Amino acid sequence: MEKAIDKSESARGPRDDRGVISTRIIAAAREEFINQGVSGTTFRAIARRADVDPALVHYYFSSKEALLDAATAPPPEFLENAKAAISSPLPTRGQHIIKHVVRSWATPETGDILRATFLCANVDEKTREKLRASMSSSFIGATAERLPQGDRLVRAGLVSSQIIGLCWLRFIWKLEPLATMPESEVVGLLAPTLQKYLNGRL
Amino acid sequence: MEKAIDKSESARGPRDDRGVISTRIIAAAREEFINQGVSGTTFRAIARRADVDPALVHYYFSSKEALLDAATAPPPEFLENAKAAISSPLPTRGQHIIKHVVRSWATPETGDILRATFLCANVDEKTREKLRASMSSSFIGATAERLPQGDRLVRAGLVSSQIIGLCWLRFIWKLEPLATMPESEVVGLLAPTLQKYLNGRL
Repeated sequence: MEKAIDKSESARGPRDDRGVISTRIIAAAREEFINQGVSGTTFRAIARRADVDPALVHYYFSSKEALLDAATAPPPEFLENAKAAISSPLPTRGQHIIKHVVRSWATPETGDILRATFLCANVDEKTREKLRASMSSSFIGATAERLPQGDRLVRAGLVSSQIIGLCWLRFIWKLEPLATMPESEVVGLLAPTLQKYLNGRL
Repeated sequence: MEKAIDKSESARGPRDDRGVISTRIIAAAREEFINQGVSGTTFRAIARRADVDPALVHYYFSSKEALLDAATAPPPEFLENAKAAISSPLPTRGQHIIKHVVRSWATPETGDILRATFLCANVDEKTREKLRASMSSSFIGATAERLPQGDRLVRAGLVSSQIIGLCWLRFIWKLEPLATMPESEVVGLLAPTLQKYLNGRL
């Protein structure tokens, strides 16, 4: 986004002061990545979906990698809410984390960003690396500080595994009853497991 | 496989009594599905990878759907071991199930079949439906019989979520330390969670 705004202020391309065009291109790219995969996505198809000239997509984004990066960048609210959940009081932190995850996936644009990130991580090593790094650092920070670092790393992995599995079944594969269960029920069922992984006896 | 053997006995095509050619085509298809996705996989690329004429792929498999079905069919040993784990004594069933899953993914051909199934389920509704059905029926059968059906269904979902998340991180996204942790350690860490989901207090 920042890059797009910088560029639009130059004399080389159309004005896009509020980032309207680049936002539309990013959303179109995200849909293409979700539906066609990384290798199946083309600048032409993105342009068609965004209803802009392909040259304009190339003007804002120099490569498919740059588009993928923009399409899978988590929104600021998501990062703020994640930070709040991760630093909430330890005894109920598991509950705050799972609530944040389930809500984020159910939020229209954020949910699409997470879905695109998860699906692209299966086939694109750079996306996978970004995701691994952000999961590890977030969830290590969520574990009890008094524990040794190696133990915290294992716990972060366990937290990630339960969260990823839930997201996959509820939001991607849509396995019932998890897919349509009310948020409060999901939170109630998963929170004790996460809490155990964060600071309980393994 | 059965279909392929039936066909090879007819007068219409080459003999393939031991299923050597069809097995090679299925393995090639699986690799293509894993690497190119469902929409990116072509009969021509499968033929090239299997080192056979494209006409031979068409001879054995009438459609991409038939190939996908064959490429994601779990091997008999996997099904037998799954059945044994699911019907093992309830107090240690969680441990048997997670051990079976982790071993199966680490077994060369079975691991590829599971990987292909998981990845294709993201983009192909029929594969997803097959997977959902087999997960639910297996894991409902693993929960404590004395519980009400609705409760068992929820528990089967929880078991699935923890298993899917672990497989994703250990075998697909390769998040450390889960990715390279010894099998016995993974089993020890996950078994209590699965056991709780099978017959513990939620």
